[in-house]
Amino acid sequence: MSDPSGNGRRMSRRSLFGLGAAGAAVAGAGAVGARSLLDEPPVAHAASTSAPYPFYGEHQAGIVTPAQDRLHFVAFDVTTGDRAELIDLLQEWTAAAARLTQGKEAGSFGAVGGDPAAAPDDTGEALGLPASGLTLTVGFGPSLFDKRFGLADRRPAALADLPKFPGEQLVPEISGGDLCVQACAHDPQVAVHAIRNLARIGFGKVSVRWSQLGFGRTSSTSRAQATPRNLMGFKDGTNNLKLEDAALLREQLWADAGDGAAWMTGGTYLVTRKIRMTIETWDRTSLTEQEQIFGRDKGEGAPLGAKREFDPLDFAAKGPDGQPHIASNAHIRLAHPSSHGNAHLLRRGYNFVDGSDGLGRLDAGLFFIAYQRDPRKQFVPVQMRLAREDPLNEYIKHVSSGLFACPPGVRDASDYWGRTLFEP
Amino acid sequence: MSDPSGNGRRMSRRSLFGLGAAGAAVAGAGAVGARSLLDEPPVAHAASTSAPYPFYGEHQAGIVTPAQDRLHFVAFDVTTGDRAELIDLLQEWTAAAARLTQGKEAGSFGAVGGDPAAAPDDTGEALGLPASGLTLTVGFGPSLFDKRFGLADRRPAALADLPKFPGEQLVPEISGGDLCVQACAHDPQVAVHAIRNLARIGFGKVSVRWSQLGFGRTSSTSRAQATPRNLMGFKDGTNNLKLEDAALLREQLWADAGDGAAWMTGGTYLVTRKIRMTIETWDRTSLTEQEQIFGRDKGEGAPLGAKREFDPLDFAAKGPDGQPHIASNAHIRLAHPSSHGNAHLLRRGYNFVDGSDGLGRLDAGLFFIAYQRDPRKQFVPVQMRLAREDPLNEYIKHVSSGLFACPPGVRDASDYWGRTLFEP
Ligand code: HEM
Ligand code: HEM
Repeated sequence: MSDPSGNGRRMSRRSLFGLGAAGAAVAGAGAVGARSLLDEPPVAHAASTSAPYPFYGEHQAGIVTPAQDRLHFVAFDVTTGDRAELIDLLQEWTAAAARLTQGKEAGSFGAVGGDPAAAPDDTGEALGLPASGLTLTVGFGPSLFDKRFGLADRRPAALADLPKFPGEQLVPEISGGDLCVQACAHDPQVAVHAIRNLARIGFGKVSVRWSQLGFGRTSSTSRAQATPRNLMGFKDGTNNLKLEDAALLREQLWADAGDGAAWMTGGTYLVTRKIRMTIETWDRTSLTEQEQIFGRDKGEGAPLGAKREFDPLDFAAKGPDGQPHIASNAHIRLAHPSSHGNAHLLRRGYNFVDGSDGLGRLDAGLFFIAYQRDPRKQFVPVQMRLAREDPLNEYIKHVSSGLFACPPGVRDASDYWGRTLFEP
Repeated sequence: MSDPSGNGRRMSRRSLFGLGAAGAAVAGAGAVGARSLLDEPPVAHAASTSAPYPFYGEHQAGIVTPAQDRLHFVAFDVTTGDRAELIDLLQEWTAAAARLTQGKEAGSFGAVGGDPAAAPDDTGEALGLPASGLTLTVGFGPSLFDKRFGLADRRPAALADLPKFPGEQLVPEISGGDLCVQACAHDPQVAVHAIRNLARIGFGKVSVRWSQLGFGRTSSTSRAQATPRNLMGFKDGTNNLKLEDAALLREQLWADAGDGAAWMTGGTYLVTRKIRMTIETWDRTSLTEQEQIFGRDKGEGAPLGAKREFDPLDFAAKGPDGQPHIASNAHIRLAHPSSHGNAHLLRRGYNFVDGSDGLGRLDAGLFFIAYQRDPRKQFVPVQMRLAREDPLNEYIKHVSSGLFACPPGVRDASDYWGRTLFEP
């Protein structure tokens, strides 16, 4: 954990970025491009040069942070059986994450101060790129609380194994995991670089169990963001828990001391579901049917019977035919807090395409991510209802599942991910 | 092929984009975001709002076009045996591509003028997004010239099957294909949307054989672009054929009437290679060794023995120890035009991460794409040399291969992809 504040002599990606942009301008000065230099960001992949998100804080970043556009999610198996080694790893990861999220390298890069005869302690592919809004969020799976690390009595009740849901077809190899890290950024190269360097640091202590790239967010977590579309073509994230909902976040998102596991105070629980869409079938469904399934119109995202995306939901409103505008089994009715004793979710999912499925179709869908205070009262009842009644099930299949306790934020450079778990 | 000019009454993604941005500003007006509205593009995924690239022209776009940041590449098997149906499909695809690349929907979108009782003829997930620099480039694989479509005598000599290269471990299911489409854009959602809509249009005539997402370009094809980095952390694309090299492009890239297949005049040949990297091993190699393998330094990308990225290569220059700065088997020496009778390639590859490999490692690497006038004289000898001598082989494995003849550009709305092939 040397130099965790990152104030050393090392070059930051941000400062290299400055140089890179100037160099590019020089290189391009005499160029006869098809479009002007101004049409493109001067450095590859740099979608945003805005200030980095703070790493230290009461809560981990990457949860209420306005959802960035790209995801690299990874679940690890811990391969060491040694508790001290696991703690060491979490400390090293924390130091690296504190640097990476601020646009610095994971460690000194060989060329600028390191030992050329040694392997560089950063892999280098994000050199020259800014922080790009990178956040890194860690979580602990139920299997971490087995006998290996003496944590069995510290497993939170809220981290209860998920029940089996009707229709799910989970593939164990891409489900579960002892640890997870969610990397979100505006630039996929930056997200991939971060995960890869954490994997490199963890060599010999953890191995990658599964990993998932998401190419476009399917959710908004702030009212300052426009609502993106999922691969079914619908706006997704309209009625989501958002960063601005302070009271609801306290009530529905953040665990507190009274919840039973004091070490999780300020933390939250994460559920991931990889949901494959049979988009070819969906694409042959009529617009009317598509809209009835969700209960919203496709163009604007307005509730059926209303005009604009953010118009309030009126589940009682009926059309001239006496039928409710929003069908009794519409997705937004089944999933709505009012159907579940006011249980909300903070959804933060991503579109994925993983090549093709060998049957002539794209292997595509939604990598669903939801944060909440207690999955037993939030994800589980909502998903149970959807699994039983949602007509969307004709077009989707849940193929992977993950459940993780995300500890509170790292307070400062002397703290580390999961300290409250290991040091009561 | 109705309304191929796209001047119909339909709303364009671009015009919706204008509305979307305004809507977002209104929605965000009272918001207490963590960062100001200005920090983020107002609409999801919009990395660039610059003018679309022209679809019509002498050559297809997406070849010398400054490499966009994201890729969705797909290879199709043709499932119909009927030549007229194949021509129909190419005509429909051309009309859709002309619209999609200009930021319009593939067809009328149900909500704005279409029939709500019918399936929308665009899938909708790119509604509200700008053209994002989308280009669509089609290619014809050797298998298209078998007996099915009466094209056997029109197969260009330059489209000769690639030889077997030492060490390659090709997986047939993700190699080859009768047709390919390369979609490049600044926004992956736009690239995926385009491929998906072409697949939807082709339903019953083609099926997806394999598809590949690339998340970051590993190449520059214009001097106005900065050089990006590949997953080995090195700048990639420094010494590439570029849009500004007019004379070289004529000589090395575009097929001409004298080459033997007159229908390919203005076209070019595409080789794809999916190259898996064992990045975990690479990451434990010393900086010095990494740099010697490529013959360039990692930080700046300069040739060893020189200072700056674009300094000229001097293969004869020796260090004080009497050894050449650039090793005799350095990648850039083995691949350099001077080692192959002045054979150049236009490289246009992308980084990929496809989850993990079941052995605790990321499944990551380079999706190599190269365009050239004659693979027999360009890709083949270069790759044969690399396959035999490149020390990089210790860290890479070629797992898929594709070869395609990319016909000339579509002249105008009466023309279509491949017309010169079918209508001599
Ligand atoms: C591929 C699968 C899914 C798709 C395509 C999908 C799509 C949508 C869409 C389009 C909306 C309306 C816009 C919005 O308010 O965000 C929505 C709302 C919602 N969805 Fe899903 N969803 C999927 C799976 C799930 C799952 C697995 C859950 C939780 C178990 C869930 C929970 C919700 C909730 C809570 C809402 C908000 C309802 C409201 O309060 O209005 N969805 N979803
Ligand atoms: C994972 C595999 C590969 C990696 C990581 C890689 C990386 C690089 C790098 C870093 C450079 C130097 C910068 C530049 O000029 O672009 C380079 C140059 C080059 N590479 Fe590769 N490359 C790979 C595979 C290939 C293959 C398969 C070919 C062709 C068969 C190829 C052909 C070339 C050529 C022609 C040059 C330019 C040499 C010169 O004229 O200076 N590379 N490559």
